[in-house]
Amino acid sequence: MSESISITLPDGSVRSFNKGITGLQIAESISSGLARATLSITVNGEIIDLDRSINEDASITLNTWDSEDGKYTFWHSSAHILAEAVQELYPQAKFGIGPPIENGFYYDIDFGDDAITAADLTKIEQKFLELARHKNSFERQEISKSQALSHYKEKGNEYKVDLIEGLEDGSITFYTQGNFTDLCRGPHVPSTGVIKAVKLTSIAGAYWRGDNESKQLTRIYGISFPKQKMLTEYLEMVEEAKKRDHRKLGKELGIYMIDKMVGSGLPIWLPKGARLRRTLESFLRDEQFERGYKEVITPHIGNIELYKTSGHYPYYSDSQYDPIQVDDEEYMLKPMNCPHHHRVYSNKMRSYRDLPLRLAEFGTVYRYEQSGELSGLSRVRGFTQDDAHIYCTHNQLKQEIKHTINLTNFVFDTFGMPVDIRLSFRDDNAEKYGGEMEYWNRAQTEIQEVADEMKLDYTIALGEASFYGPKIDFIIRDAIGRKWQLGTVQVDYVMPERFDLTYIGSDNDKHRPVIIHRAPFGSMERFTSILIEHFAGNFPVWLSPLQVKVLPISDDQNEYAKTCVQALKEIGVRVEIDDRSEQIGAKIRDAETSKVPYMLITGAKEQENNTVSVRRHRKGDIGTFTFSDFLSTIKNEIETKQLPED
Amino acid sequence: MSESISITLPDGSVRSFNKGITGLQIAESISSGLARATLSITVNGEIIDLDRSINEDASITLNTWDSEDGKYTFWHSSAHILAEAVQELYPQAKFGIGPPIENGFYYDIDFGDDAITAADLTKIEQKFLELARHKNSFERQEISKSQALSHYKEKGNEYKVDLIEGLEDGSITFYTQGNFTDLCRGPHVPSTGVIKAVKLTSIAGAYWRGDNESKQLTRIYGISFPKQKMLTEYLEMVEEAKKRDHRKLGKELGIYMIDKMVGSGLPIWLPKGARLRRTLESFLRDEQFERGYKEVITPHIGNIELYKTSGHYPYYSDSQYDPIQVDDEEYMLKPMNCPHHHRVYSNKMRSYRDLPLRLAEFGTVYRYEQSGELSGLSRVRGFTQDDAHIYCTHNQLKQEIKHTINLTNFVFDTFGMPVDIRLSFRDDNAEKYGGEMEYWNRAQTEIQEVADEMKLDYTIALGEASFYGPKIDFIIRDAIGRKWQLGTVQVDYVMPERFDLTYIGSDNDKHRPVIIHRAPFGSMERFTSILIEHFAGNFPVWLSPLQVKVLPISDDQNEYAKTCVQALKEIGVRVEIDDRSEQIGAKIRDAETSKVPYMLITGAKEQENNTVSVRRHRKGDIGTFTFSDFLSTIKNEIETKQLPED
Repeated sequence: MSESISITLPDGSVRSFNKGITGLQIAESISSGLARATLSITVNGEIIDLDRSINEDASITLNTWDSEDGKYTFWHSSAHILAEAVQELYPQAKFGIGPPIENGFYYDIDFGDDAITAADLTKIEQKFLELARHKNSFERQEISKSQALSHYKEKGNEYKVDLIEGLEDGSITFYTQGNFTDLCRGPHVPSTGVIKAVKLTSIAGAYWRGDNESKQLTRIYGISFPKQKMLTEYLEMVEEAKKRDHRKLGKELGIYMIDKMVGSGLPIWLPKGARLRRTLESFLRDEQFERGYKEVITPHIGNIELYKTSGHYPYYSDSQYDPIQVDDEEYMLKPMNCPHHHRVYSNKMRSYRDLPLRLAEFGTVYRYEQSGELSGLSRVRGFTQDDAHIYCTHNQLKQEIKHTINLTNFVFDTFGMPVDIRLSFRDDNAEKYGGEMEYWNRAQTEIQEVADEMKLDYTIALGEASFYGPKIDFIIRDAIGRKWQLGTVQVDYVMPERFDLTYIGSDNDKHRPVIIHRAPFGSMERFTSILIEHFAGNFPVWLSPLQVKVLPISDDQNEYAKTCVQALKEIGVRVEIDDRSEQIGAKIRDAETSKVPYMLITGAKEQENNTVSVRRHRKGDIGTFTFSDFLSTIKNEIETKQLPED
Repeated sequence: MSESISITLPDGSVRSFNKGITGLQIAESISSGLARATLSITVNGEIIDLDRSINEDASITLNTWDSEDGKYTFWHSSAHILAEAVQELYPQAKFGIGPPIENGFYYDIDFGDDAITAADLTKIEQKFLELARHKNSFERQEISKSQALSHYKEKGNEYKVDLIEGLEDGSITFYTQGNFTDLCRGPHVPSTGVIKAVKLTSIAGAYWRGDNESKQLTRIYGISFPKQKMLTEYLEMVEEAKKRDHRKLGKELGIYMIDKMVGSGLPIWLPKGARLRRTLESFLRDEQFERGYKEVITPHIGNIELYKTSGHYPYYSDSQYDPIQVDDEEYMLKPMNCPHHHRVYSNKMRSYRDLPLRLAEFGTVYRYEQSGELSGLSRVRGFTQDDAHIYCTHNQLKQEIKHTINLTNFVFDTFGMPVDIRLSFRDDNAEKYGGEMEYWNRAQTEIQEVADEMKLDYTIALGEASFYGPKIDFIIRDAIGRKWQLGTVQVDYVMPERFDLTYIGSDNDKHRPVIIHRAPFGSMERFTSILIEHFAGNFPVWLSPLQVKVLPISDDQNEYAKTCVQALKEIGVRVEIDDRSEQIGAKIRDAETSKVPYMLITGAKEQENNTVSVRRHRKGDIGTFTFSDFLSTIKNEIETKQLPED
């Protein structure tokens, strides 16, 4: 009888298999459908090919298209097929590197004297699909360094030679599908046949090894899918995303500007953006106040001692601005609000009766980003966190985690954003983490208990915890299906030690509190960029910088229109009048362009009957209402934070 | 017939006098009462003794106790009498300098081997008053440098010798009253007899010429008055000011903290302070929105090019933090918001139809202050301005000035603070000012027209304009009579040039707008320090961080108390419950200490009748009300921003 090994599945169940079993066999033992869908297997943290033998007890995950790791494998294999197609069409081409990326893959290629343009991509795509249909397998081959080197020296490929020279003998593998062999660590999908659709999206120049002294290669970007329909949907989504791009809409709607003379990566909130942001801030501030948070306001600089104490200086100095000398002290633009809040905590002696203490701040922080990384409101050098730190006892931790998850879910629910939750726990690599093991275990158990009690849809990610403690990540899906990681809830056992935070317990002894860091929006800038794209600029009425525009048909109705404006203002509606001497058609066109949700057209008839003819942005005329009916309708729509209908 | 000269009085009237007339004679020509009250005369900008001859045409002001210059003369003479008294009592004493200051005067004295303590001050005061009663005049004597030097060398006074060595021959004068002669530029009151009351307030050490390598002298501070009653009132005010000191109350009420580890001069707003500040901000933001201002939010740093363009760098670099290097650019912590707003203005092409454009921001700025100058919330290194810049055409300037004065007056009226207005205009020294003379004249005329039309109580201060243009200063009086210069309205002709700001006029040509800078509060920090002292921490209900505390008499009423809390919250009242198991007396004591304006005591009877027993801070029990009556009373009190009664 052959030796058996224990395989632990993601749900914790353990099954026994013969030593030497492959990932594909495990998948088949569960269901043939799963076997068809599985692209690679993660064995004790390492992703490998489905046909490789497993020879010891292991925790495994079968990676399908629906997982990040499955897509990674899929796109990695796609990069190889791209290279194979290029090799067929351009035999002289020499290949650099070809990795999977967040959305697809690319390959850097030296085409020699051929100049490839976007027009050539269709031809390459066709060859790609033709090769994929061969249903070739990816054959893995271990190869010695000297053999690998002589293979590529023979082909005259200096790039692969350069790569191999940096590798260790004994760790080198080649993968071959059809007529194409590549230096590659793997893993790959079982057959090229799973790749049913591909789009080569763009061409760019890329220096070899990113070094602008080296040769510039041609980078071909692409994305591939297991179904044609997915590609179609993806391309539609990309098209839709372009229309919704917050950099485009942000400018058109007057949300923000970036001015080189003020500074790169330093957005300025224009009047409409400032109103949007203040509305978001009030929403969260009121909600937090109701939930027992206390707001503080701290300066934007801090003595460098704060960051030496927290350990963020000098270790994170790459993302921090240089210190400023003031008399004999050094100050930093604050890269985070935490140390300031910890000092508020220790401003007075705290008792267990004062806990939990929930300190909140809309705190603007400054972090260095390379200028090439900057983008609109989403990658900036200064941003405002909707930050809070909860100081509590270990016994209060569970209830406080529930409290923060509740708030975070409430927030995203208000914007109609479905949330996926990831519990980021520690792995076995003890050196990666600070704080007492006993507390970690308790916290992780309690976090999972809370998630179960709240019936949350969650996944657990081992090894994704931070140094300070376990955390909960919220991944929201926007209106066109893109995922964004936003609010994080983060347990911290380290800073209470470093800042020597204490409270007097009911036993009259000193104890350490535990800290929860949390920020539902994350950053006002980035969240606003996501909101703009989520709503395509068609904000719900409560969020709209301008909620109503009153459009008198002729100057004769200006007075009536003004009484409407006044009545709306009195119930807190953000309203403007367009009393220019323009045709009503022009007034409507301008209002539609500004995406104001409601237009009230007031003509002679409306004035006579004390009514308004109501036009809804993107819907057109929705009928004539008595003005008082409209008032109560919009009041209700704002108060209930109603979402747009589509 | 003797030659005559023209004397222009402050009201603009011109009178003719004989050449050689004195200030006293001019005063007598108006009224004998005025002559008795006049302490010195300002002749063409120079303050001189009343008995000196005037030999040319001049603009004059007669300085009485009610003017700053009158007080200056009064206290300057008082310093001489202090020295005379010390000379009588301590003949070996050597005198350094003895100037008038903002509230009184001091003299730095080398007492040799005598150690003077606060206990000795009474004796000196008595001698001071005895000498003042002699009604001595101050005799002015022009003296050559060599004579002056030998006078003090003979007396062995190295301090005066040191001072004289720095003076120019021909410009040196001595003044003598009674037996005391002093090196002095003057001027002085006509007779020591006008000084009826004096208080020597404190003793401190002071290095000669502020140099800590030099000898330490004894500084005696004092203040004097023309009436005993004024001194009594002043001392009461000082006593009251001590009780109201915002540094003391700010800590007791949990408004702010300063933490050395975060940074000197960098206040942190604690929860109660943040709530107070947010209430102030909302008040002004809503009012500004209503009045057509548009809010922007700009970063706290800016490229150094902004400040080179404005001219604030390097000329004001003493009060600015050092630049921070970012890639190949330099950034500064912004010392003001103006350049950021100017760049918002020029973010797009502006037409005359877009003007006035009123950009507002609660903008936090950072300015260096020496650590010795820092004090609580009133002298800090980082503060938030309630800033706005109004960009308008020259034709709109008058209406916009009216608009800003209106808002500023409205704001201070809300806090029950009477306002004195100073119109700060240019003087004849053309080099001090930028911009076109034509615009200056027009603006000054229009400002004065507005002040007249609005029937404001104003004074004109020639030479107090800024480099950029004329300005209007608002000097408020607080509840104990102290004056604070707050909101400034400042016309600016220079920055539109420097930032090349333009708009397209109705003539289709490019024009320069004019800018008004204005900030009613000035700084949230300093204004809050004044508010705390003005209200002695007993804020009007609408401003109170906590407005109501509900105090159940026993645990049996906790539920009823909670329904009261909930109902109050629903109408936006900031309310807490004290449901500790404490005696009601202790709950009331704690609530009174926190200065919460309303305490609602809920016992069994109140619960049964749906009433609350209402206690008002500092007034005690004000009776039992049905809960719904209390709700409407407090709602009204908050909405109307009612001021405390006393």
